[in-house]
Amino acid sequence: MTRIEQQIQFIREIDKVKNIYRQTYLADGERKENDAEHSWHIALMAMLLKEYVPGVDVMKVMVMVLIHDLVEIDAGDTYAYDSRGAETKRAREVQAADRIFGLLPKDQGEYFRELWEEFESYETKEAKYAHLLDNFQPLLLNDASGGKSWAEHGVKKSQIYKRNEKIEETSEDVWEFMKNIVQKHIEKGNIIDE
Amino acid sequence: MTRIEQQIQFIREIDKVKNIYRQTYLADGERKENDAEHSWHIALMAMLLKEYVPGVDVMKVMVMVLIHDLVEIDAGDTYAYDSRGAETKRAREVQAADRIFGLLPKDQGEYFRELWEEFESYETKEAKYAHLLDNFQPLLLNDASGGKSWAEHGVKKSQIYKRNEKIEETSEDVWEFMKNIVQKHIEKGNIIDE
Repeated sequence: MTRIEQQIQFIREIDKVKNIYRQTYLADGERKENDAEHSWHIALMAMLLKEYVPGVDVMKVMVMVLIHDLVEIDAGDTYAYDSRGAETKRAREVQAADRIFGLLPKDQGEYFRELWEEFESYETKEAKYAHLLDNFQPLLLNDASGGKSWAEHGVKKSQIYKRNEKIEETSEDVWEFMKNIVQKHIEKGNIIDE
Repeated sequence: MTRIEQQIQFIREIDKVKNIYRQTYLADGERKENDAEHSWHIALMAMLLKEYVPGVDVMKVMVMVLIHDLVEIDAGDTYAYDSRGAETKRAREVQAADRIFGLLPKDQGEYFRELWEEFESYETKEAKYAHLLDNFQPLLLNDASGGKSWAEHGVKKSQIYKRNEKIEETSEDVWEFMKNIVQKHIEKGNIIDE
């Protein structure tokens, strides 16, 4: 297979993330969002909100978020507050990364694979910004759609705070905004206050 | 409204492109693709295929393609080979751009608006690469889904060549790949040979 054929094969394969549905509803509340839509949204947010995370390599973050969910083609989406799914998530996703990034020419496959590992490790400035976007966007959609995804899953404030514990150090402005949304939905009864 | 509130308002508004459906089927042929999915796909392709368009500002292209279809929130999708729709497309889209990019803080709104105009003008290297991606991706999906979108619309080879007349000067490698796909679907009877 030629280099361009390998690249095209990958481009065709990743079309499948358009059929991986998440637990978040679109802003209009009509249906759930898929991984491709989510990734598009946060890639654009990476550009829009960069002033809140000074010194970050925005292009790297954009590529990181565009690919961060590709492993779900094989591993499926694990809901943020699914503790049983979380136990096996890493093993499932590593296997998926091997196969999917392995479709690419070696240099590109390694580049994406490393970028995905950097995202997963949640240590670098870029990974922290990517996670901020990855967590902030569904919160905005949950708010816009009346909080029904939280209510359906009986989500607790403590779970949200735990999941977002590194947001404050990444951007106080965004964390402030997020806390206000959580508070609003505690008052509305969509998030459990414990 | 504070600056961050304006940005969040925009982020919520653009969620609507997830409900703007195109004429292209997903690779599996099961349903049509929406603008957010399409934009995600070509933003990632911008990174993957950059070696075929040397010297291009890839980050600029990524942002350009992430926003290029936002005007369709108000203007709707105009099918590539809909000549009647094409007559009013520009006026509908300019009005949409005014409203949608106008939701942002002035500096960001102007930046996106100019980037969208640059895409539309199809003159710069970045705009040419963005159009290459915008045209190549549905061709790959049409091929993967058995060419049924072409067959449904009775598309002619001459229409495809006219639409893609600037691709060859942007990348001969990609144009070669595209021509082979078109030829295959002429032979299969999905594209009319005239």
